[in-house]
Amino acid sequence: MAKEPKTLDILFHEHKIVATLPKMNEAAQSKQLKDAFIKHLAETKVHVERLEEVFKIIGKKPEQKTCEAMMGIVKEGSEIMEEYAGTPALDAGLLAAAQAVEHYEMSRYGTLRTWALELGMKDAAKLLQTTLDEEQATDIALTSIATKVVNQNAEKAA
Amino acid sequence: MAKEPKTLDILFHEHKIVATLPKMNEAAQSKQLKDAFIKHLAETKVHVERLEEVFKIIGKKPEQKTCEAMMGIVKEGSEIMEEYAGTPALDAGLLAAAQAVEHYEMSRYGTLRTWALELGMKDAAKLLQTTLDEEQATDIALTSIATKVVNQNAEKAA
Repeated sequence: MAKEPKTLDILFHEHKIVATLPKMNEAAQSKQLKDAFIKHLAETKVHVERLEEVFKIIGKKPEQKTCEAMMGIVKEGSEIMEEYAGTPALDAGLLAAAQAVEHYEMSRYGTLRTWALELGMKDAAKLLQTTLDEEQATDIALTSIATKVVNQNAEKAA
Repeated sequence: MAKEPKTLDILFHEHKIVATLPKMNEAAQSKQLKDAFIKHLAETKVHVERLEEVFKIIGKKPEQKTCEAMMGIVKEGSEIMEEYAGTPALDAGLLAAAQAVEHYEMSRYGTLRTWALELGMKDAAKLLQTTLDEEQATDIALTSIATKVVNQNAEKAA
């Protein structure tokens, strides 16, 4: 690569998520969603450690680059917590924001994994793949919760 | 839902992508990536039509809501085109940006599909699922191109 890849902003993402998940956990109404956020907070802290390991492997200093897309997603999450506070739509909104974050991360880890693999950095690729697998599993778990949350809201509204 | 769901910004996304893909096609170096962008431009125009159909089904006027996250991703794409112009890393950067867009859309379509399905709006859910399938197929195709692009760059650099 001729320049620093943009996707190094992934460390910024992960730190932003560590800071945001406790607020989302506090805002969430259903126990299942609260538990999912707590579980993912613990995982995300490990993702930060894995990224620091990847930086070591590629011989770079771990640094965070501000990412406007991520700032936009997090801002949207904050707006949802404010605007939907006390309404049955809050959890559905939080889930939509959380899944946007998950997918954004999946695209970044997928890109980095592909680059690492093709450049022969097998150890880095393995670490990135492990985190990618966890992000995908979180996304699937959130879809399952979303199904129940919307269902419950529809029943209440009926 | 108590308020308009945030995810109605998906129409804004799709229009933004229709406007951006011709620039990405022009910037791309490999024929395979150019072809992928052209194919996805045609698909995206159909996605707009499908969304207009969904708006009809849910009885809402199709409107675009500005989405800061999407603006951030598109801005990043523009920066890549500028900064990496003439370097072998350009296509890899374009692919990273394009896959970020695909994943963001996948999260939105997934959320909307789940909501539609659970609210008994089967026709809307089917339209949203069809587009979601196409976004997923595009993402897989882009990963395959990314593998080749990074490989070629590594061979040139060796």
